[in-house]
Amino acid sequence: MSVEIYWGSGSPYAWRVLLAAAARHVPYESRLLSFSAKEHKAPAFLAVNPRGKVPALKDGDRVVTESLAIMHHLDGLGSGPALFGASHAERTHILEWCSRIVSDLEEAVYGVARPLMFAKPDADTAGKVEAALPALHAELAGLETALAQGDWLAGGPAPSAADFAAFPFLKYVERAAGKEAARAIDLGVRPLAARYPRLAAWQARIEAMPGYERTYPPHWREG
Amino acid sequence: MSVEIYWGSGSPYAWRVLLAAAARHVPYESRLLSFSAKEHKAPAFLAVNPRGKVPALKDGDRVVTESLAIMHHLDGLGSGPALFGASHAERTHILEWCSRIVSDLEEAVYGVARPLMFAKPDADTAGKVEAALPALHAELAGLETALAQGDWLAGGPAPSAADFAAFPFLKYVERAAGKEAARAIDLGVRPLAARYPRLAAWQARIEAMPGYERTYPPHWREG
Repeated sequence: MSVEIYWGSGSPYAWRVLLAAAARHVPYESRLLSFSAKEHKAPAFLAVNPRGKVPALKDGDRVVTESLAIMHHLDGLGSGPALFGASHAERTHILEWCSRIVSDLEEAVYGVARPLMFAKPDADTAGKVEAALPALHAELAGLETALAQGDWLAGGPAPSAADFAAFPFLKYVERAAGKEAARAIDLGVRPLAARYPRLAAWQARIEAMPGYERTYPPHWREG
Repeated sequence: MSVEIYWGSGSPYAWRVLLAAAARHVPYESRLLSFSAKEHKAPAFLAVNPRGKVPALKDGDRVVTESLAIMHHLDGLGSGPALFGASHAERTHILEWCSRIVSDLEEAVYGVARPLMFAKPDADTAGKVEAALPALHAELAGLETALAQGDWLAGGPAPSAADFAAFPFLKYVERAAGKEAARAIDLGVRPLAARYPRLAAWQARIEAMPGYERTYPPHWREG
């Protein structure tokens, strides 16, 4: 086996790549790095990715970094429908979706999740979170609308890179909504099935994928 | 002529697309929107891109948004070396470069430029800018190193989407360095040729492209 994937538990960028590898049926050796032990900044990993960021994929001598590029690389391995589509036009469309997720969904999710996940709760937390909610719900509503057209964000009969780009950020904001600091705030995302039923069904489709369990952030199982 | 490009003066994302159209020799009708008149949020443009963001490209009935996706679309038009390369492996490599620029260079540039371009200078401005400088110079040094290998960021004999993704952000930080509020701070980017000679030469190569002048932000000519 020549493919190795370097990842960290809870990194949404790394999660994308694990999902993509599962969808493409690409066997890989898992290289789980500990963020708390700073293994992603240690010499052994810096020899793989001098930028010290996960995910990274090693395929023989070739190293690919950046989640979108790794998903694209996985289209050259494994089997099944291509994550970036079957034609130039489809690839443009999927890249457009991925970019929209990177530029807008990520920022909207972080706006709500960061004060809950990383900062010590203080008098400002609720205010910051509430100020960020409209942007989040604009993005979620946009995804919900897209899923009225079909099972997958970019259309088509199978999940694309766009679905895997978005999915970890949905899980991320749901996790933030479960934090102690979020108790007093209605984020409007739980239960997702009541708020965004198509998104919840889409999530369930991804979670039903063979190999999904192996992608789930190990430390999230602990609480 | 069926291609229209909607853009705004000074948007680095829009600038990418204009550069890409010039490189691919794609004729287009220019639809310059006024940000100050909020034309990008007006009904006429929302009918093109409901998200109210430039750039957007209209090619017959098809609308493409998001700068990377539009550059990819332009590979299906015009002529010359493809902006996303000639093979799957090259496309992966160029997408990796573009992602790196989107995730790291943009943030590093905004960290320095935002306090200078958008905020009223105050006692904090110099501190904010100085705190952001190490990240900026780490990125610029990374680009300078890449250009030791050849004329273009992602390698190869011709500019790729990566070069056009990065270029406007270089111009952006140089412009920030020329602002009144930056007088008392040495950003370490001017003159670029003295600080990052390979980046300066790369910039000059792009500026020598036929059609470059048409891409330059009109309101930047005014000061």
